Amino acid sequence: MSRFSILILLGSLFSGVAVAQSSADSLMIKKISDEVFMNGQAYNNLRYLCKKVGPRLSGSPGAALAVEQTARMLREAGADTVYLQPCMVPQWVRGEKETGKAVLTNGKSIPLNIVSLGNAVGTPASGITGGILEVKSFQELEALGADKVKGKIVFYNFRMDPRHINTFRAYGEAGVYRSQGPSKAAALGAVGVIVRTLSPVLDDNPHTGATRYDEDKPKIPAVAISTNGAVELSGLISAGKVRSVYIKTNCKMLEDVLSYNVVGELRGSEHPDEVITVGGHLDSWDLAEGAHDDGTGCMQSIEIIRSFKALGIRPKRSVRAVMFMNEENGLRGGTKYAEIARTESKKFIMALESDAGGFTPRGFGFSASAAQKSRILSWQPLFRQYGTLEFNEGGGGADIGPLRPLGTALIGLNPDSQRYMDLHHAKTDVFEAVSERELNLGTVVMAAMVYLVSEYGL
Amino acid sequence: MSRFSILILLGSLFSGVAVAQSSADSLMIKKISDEVFMNGQAYNNLRYLCKKVGPRLSGSPGAALAVEQTARMLREAGADTVYLQPCMVPQWVRGEKETGKAVLTNGKSIPLNIVSLGNAVGTPASGITGGILEVKSFQELEALGADKVKGKIVFYNFRMDPRHINTFRAYGEAGVYRSQGPSKAAALGAVGVIVRTLSPVLDDNPHTGATRYDEDKPKIPAVAISTNGAVELSGLISAGKVRSVYIKTNCKMLEDVLSYNVVGELRGSEHPDEVITVGGHLDSWDLAEGAHDDGTGCMQSIEIIRSFKALGIRPKRSVRAVMFMNEENGLRGGTKYAEIARTESKKFIMALESDAGGFTPRGFGFSASAAQKSRILSWQPLFRQYGTLEFNEGGGGADIGPLRPLGTALIGLNPDSQRYMDLHHAKTDVFEAVSERELNLGTVVMAAMVYLVSEYGL
Repeated sequence: MSRFSILILLGSLFSGVAVAQSSADSLMIKKISDEVFMNGQAYNNLRYLCKKVGPRLSGSPGAALAVEQTARMLREAGADTVYLQPCMVPQWVRGEKETGKAVLTNGKSIPLNIVSLGNAVGTPASGITGGILEVKSFQELEALGADKVKGKIVFYNFRMDPRHINTFRAYGEAGVYRSQGPSKAAALGAVGVIVRTLSPVLDDNPHTGATRYDEDKPKIPAVAISTNGAVELSGLISAGKVRSVYIKTNCKMLEDVLSYNVVGELRGSEHPDEVITVGGHLDSWDLAEGAHDDGTGCMQSIEIIRSFKALGIRPKRSVRAVMFMNEENGLRGGTKYAEIARTESKKFIMALESDAGGFTPRGFGFSASAAQKSRILSWQPLFRQYGTLEFNEGGGGADIGPLRPLGTALIGLNPDSQRYMDLHHAKTDVFEAVSERELNLGTVVMAAMVYLVSEYGL
Repeated sequence: MSRFSILILLGSLFSGVAVAQSSADSLMIKKISDEVFMNGQAYNNLRYLCKKVGPRLSGSPGAALAVEQTARMLREAGADTVYLQPCMVPQWVRGEKETGKAVLTNGKSIPLNIVSLGNAVGTPASGITGGILEVKSFQELEALGADKVKGKIVFYNFRMDPRHINTFRAYGEAGVYRSQGPSKAAALGAVGVIVRTLSPVLDDNPHTGATRYDEDKPKIPAVAISTNGAVELSGLISAGKVRSVYIKTNCKMLEDVLSYNVVGELRGSEHPDEVITVGGHLDSWDLAEGAHDDGTGCMQSIEIIRSFKALGIRPKRSVRAVMFMNEENGLRGGTKYAEIARTESKKFIMALESDAGGFTPRGFGFSASAAQKSRILSWQPLFRQYGTLEFNEGGGGADIGPLRPLGTALIGLNPDSQRYMDLHHAKTDVFEAVSERELNLGTVVMAAMVYLVSEYGL
């Protein structure tokens, strides 16, 4: 927790202003909470999104169906206006079964539990074969140099550090191997890359996720291996038992296709030209139902509209629930939303994103001006009874980031992070991994923040 | 959150004492945290307890095996002494398949998804049959009076209130129907009782749990029905479609048998006669693996011993990890532990129990003297980076409660409560429902509290 959060905690406890306004606001937030816990539809809607729509990578039939179905949910929730924002998105396809094996010095081979990284190129039809080179860091790779790397398959076996209490910190540290690893290896002549799955737990589920090729480097195939698989492969390498590794993948990037952000709006009663954006991203990886990533953020945003309507709350400022398209492998939806925002004669005062899972909310992160933060700080006591205590400096979300140059205060919901990385981008990110109460509690504090900004502005 | 917790929060932030001592303590707690997250055995031990031992209701073969295996775990963890405290425990057995059905006015019948409540008597071999009487409260039951209740099966259809953010509050409100419902119905002549499962979610898993018969009332059979089953049955009753209900159960209370608390101790280096107790309960309901209830509390307590030994921490005061027997349906282990404590020439300065699930820790509850609380309060900032912020008035645990008359400060670990009641006392309380990181994080803050008390006393 940053120093800022402590300041906020102190500030809020002593703020006379907060105490003065807290009674009526506290009652209203309790009403919202009761409505969400008694009649909430987010969980049912999430079941639909996960089980009837399913995986919805940008450009896929699932994504198209998700656009249609969340537009329906927003209409049913009671949004005044529901519309689509067209945007072109990349269309990456995994193709048929991906296989890998380690050929051992005794002539036998063992299968490698792999999946291609998102946006990666596939192998030739005959696959790729190479000696394996295990490294734990870029420094180690670069110290080996082109002579030793050339023609090899590089295995980045960087373990997510379990000592970080916030798993996003460990994810940030380890994530560079997934995003930059292929190009850094290719620069030294590697023919392929295997990245240890970004997960703190040992299991057999490889996690995908986007990689990013440097345009001036050869694009080489890149896969993730499960954590158990990484441990096994590393053991075999240490024992000198691996002769070569074979990988065959079939993924490729097709032409961009048309897709959409989905927007549902409640028009502000007093300041309709001040816009509050609340959302999550609608696309998911192809391997997962995208329950926590990020079905929950989308369903929570729709539920805010529904609960306001159900309670007859007419927000003073306009509230838009936005399902952003293409967060996972392009961010085209978030970029398009900000691009359109720039052309609208409105003020985009605040944007709140929920894209860290539908877990119990612990706090918020803020990227905002001092004046904006000061006002938000005065509301902090209202969140206490919902256990949402940690107000941290810095935060927002990938999709709302492009709004920052417009002066928009960005807020990220920070749920408890312990379980997220276990299932993130893996086939285990399914509806059953979501707790209805945790999901609802997240909605409540998001709705409270939206309500307060809609009442008082920023 | 109570006013006390806010005071603690404030007090701790401004306490010069806390700041002065926090640096070395903070480093030591971080070492413990790193050890637990890097090399922790609680999760592996829990897997063993759930999958190799399994259900372990007091007096069952599973309970006997659990005693043996946790004694082994404590020895392997490095406890100086491991010993058993004999105590007699009740032996309640469920018997063979339990069945229930609602006979409808159209002559058909539908099955009722039921399980006997713990400690309940069974039905006669021929089962019981009666008209069904649905009530939502004791007031409603008593208003009906003996004339209408006589010969009937009473159906307590009290829904756990989802509006309480802390699910233990809702559990407390609804729990009286499970514990007192049978005797209150029997007092008016009822022949059996069906209690709606204590769970905030709608599903098909009936939850068991102890009921308590008044000695001066007839003991009548008592079952829980799943939440979905309760909704269905209520609908049929409202529609006037239920002619009668049939229940057949086979449970009974046998003679008391010998069992044990399991104790593992690290002897204090400076004040060995001051004892810190940390524990959970070893018994579980017969339907469940008892993962969250309370395998996690037991495994966390063992892990504290292991991590201290691994780090070479020699506590100044004696630390005892205790697996209490028979929390679920008798509390004989906790009672026996305090009874023996009274005969020991030692000071039982603090007892900490983890019996609210192995979820992310949110805080502690304290039942202690003002002086004890004041000291604990000074440590509060040390827990901040582990997200354990809520220090609340009141708390402890069922098993450590009997120590209170000895002046022992009682502390209960308060994990996030959102998911606990979904699986509490049900067959869904299995190893797979536990997150390794959440379990470990709970251990860390428990270990930190034990460490601080062992260093500074209370």
